[in-house]
Amino acid sequence: MKIIYSPEHSQHNTKTELSGGELVSPFECADRMEYICKALKEYDLGPLIEPRQYPRSHVEKIHSKNYLEFLDSCWEEWQAAGMKGEAIPTAWPSRSMTSPRIPEFIDGKLGYYALAGETSIAANTARSAWLSSNIALTAADTIVQGETSCFALARPPGHHASKDQYGGYCFINNAAVATQYLLDNGFAKVALMDVDFHHGNGTQAIFYDRKDVFFSSIHGDPTHEFPYYLGYAEEKGAGEGLGYNLNHPLPAGTSYSEWEAKLEESLIAFKAYGADVMVVSLGLDTFENDPISSFKIKTDEYLKMGQKLASLELPTLFIMEGGYAVEDIGYNTANVLKGFLQAT
Amino acid sequence: MKIIYSPEHSQHNTKTELSGGELVSPFECADRMEYICKALKEYDLGPLIEPRQYPRSHVEKIHSKNYLEFLDSCWEEWQAAGMKGEAIPTAWPSRSMTSPRIPEFIDGKLGYYALAGETSIAANTARSAWLSSNIALTAADTIVQGETSCFALARPPGHHASKDQYGGYCFINNAAVATQYLLDNGFAKVALMDVDFHHGNGTQAIFYDRKDVFFSSIHGDPTHEFPYYLGYAEEKGAGEGLGYNLNHPLPAGTSYSEWEAKLEESLIAFKAYGADVMVVSLGLDTFENDPISSFKIKTDEYLKMGQKLASLELPTLFIMEGGYAVEDIGYNTANVLKGFLQAT
Repeated sequence: MKIIYSPEHSQHNTKTELSGGELVSPFECADRMEYICKALKEYDLGPLIEPRQYPRSHVEKIHSKNYLEFLDSCWEEWQAAGMKGEAIPTAWPSRSMTSPRIPEFIDGKLGYYALAGETSIAANTARSAWLSSNIALTAADTIVQGETSCFALARPPGHHASKDQYGGYCFINNAAVATQYLLDNGFAKVALMDVDFHHGNGTQAIFYDRKDVFFSSIHGDPTHEFPYYLGYAEEKGAGEGLGYNLNHPLPAGTSYSEWEAKLEESLIAFKAYGADVMVVSLGLDTFENDPISSFKIKTDEYLKMGQKLASLELPTLFIMEGGYAVEDIGYNTANVLKGFLQAT
Repeated sequence: MKIIYSPEHSQHNTKTELSGGELVSPFECADRMEYICKALKEYDLGPLIEPRQYPRSHVEKIHSKNYLEFLDSCWEEWQAAGMKGEAIPTAWPSRSMTSPRIPEFIDGKLGYYALAGETSIAANTARSAWLSSNIALTAADTIVQGETSCFALARPPGHHASKDQYGGYCFINNAAVATQYLLDNGFAKVALMDVDFHHGNGTQAIFYDRKDVFFSSIHGDPTHEFPYYLGYAEEKGAGEGLGYNLNHPLPAGTSYSEWEAKLEESLIAFKAYGADVMVVSLGLDTFENDPISSFKIKTDEYLKMGQKLASLELPTLFIMEGGYAVEDIGYNTANVLKGFLQAT
């Protein structure tokens, strides 16, 4: 399996995450990629390949232009305003502040384009987000070229980013960008399986009213887990997309066997839907020792997850999302891919 | 002029404000009240009177019960969840996360009930907010009893708080609670004049579709200033309230004479409306040296502001809002009241 990767992701290297009322060192850190590369190499899962650069137009099919311009200029505007820390929003257009206007001052723009405030923006954040999207596009292209699987080792992750909002460590929705690329290059129906512990709210929102993408997610119940305000079982799609959104919120302590039963439901739905390709938003924060999550999947069980995903027998594009047990994320990631390859 | 006040406000004494990507010492601090009390005493403006306690039902006419219950339990729930800092939200129901559900975990509840994140919640925050609302109610009662003016020296302030959201240092909307009390006790039409540097978004939202309150605000243009997402000139009220909302957003550097011209417009509108009582949301952050604002009003000019407000010749209830030039806020506040009393 080809692995698309660039070490330049490490230029996105923020120092602060707002968590529990404190500014802590970010859980989503560059070191995660080192452990993954090490395990992939040890398991000899495939060659690391540098991404190509794609025109911005591919990303503009998913994100609004004004949002992307904001991402590009945010850090410079923040610094020019004399702010001393990394860029963190302090106000947002809530249900009681409903002007359709977009503020001009960076502090107001930041809140307009954010859906969460744990995620700081600093130098090279935007550059790394664009690079990450090129990793996803390069990987999607390998599937278009006929590969049966590929791994986009993208960082920063993407599945929380919506059409025009960042948050949850995500800026550009890599899975959505890759999905659109697949649809634009010969595939007709994408099964988008999000196995990250956190609901892929951005991806869901982007494709909610479309019938060419079936989004499904297995995740911590948003009643108790980020992103809190989306990801409930009653969200089934809208308009043409009605019936093509399937959420499985699960309680803290969920084991792999309970988790796999929900994956089975999603795969059955994908098959009935007639998907001709699968995109997997691959988060490893379902791991039993993840520091900010509450499922109980063990390292060996990620082999089974990969095998199960292979049972759909579709060309499959894996795209890296979350996972914060830094020293374990390598083997957990590698096990999913190894299990997948064993079963195909 | 009677001054309603309690030193117990100082129990709301948070240590952190999220500002410029850092956690700094809050601009809205207990010391502000010390300087105001000192100047009021020096000017001999009136006796300090302790607030009475009113039934919660008065506040429940403005704020939803579930919001007030959240305020009451927030700090205990936050601590029980093992959070180490003061309560600061990290995610919120944005335009891309639209579930109508209210999360059960405190981190999700916090974002649901917040419209801004600069404002930490800690021990006694809720208690002080309730006390502050009792100050406003006690002061409103003096107007009901026939006094021609009264000053509710309330802290924390209130004008940013909406029906079910806190932020901008505000938790219970004291001006709105007092306004409702006046309407419930003999007055028919309230002129609600917000002279704080920041738009009174909460007050506007609460009365936006009502004809028994005419809300007007002179404030920093939200294109560049908090609260960013409300306070534009085109917001004129809705339904029965159409025509009874008048915003004057003004640019950085606004002088007193420019400011007073807008106040004149508001007072003319109040007179045409036929108001029988005025509530003034009295913020002093229009001061030239305020650390987080950008108007250029000088200490002596607050005398003129008070005189001008008196020209409406209505019973007038002043309610304390913002102002963060701590060492100057005392004389600035006292000058408004002194000017008002000189002219009546």
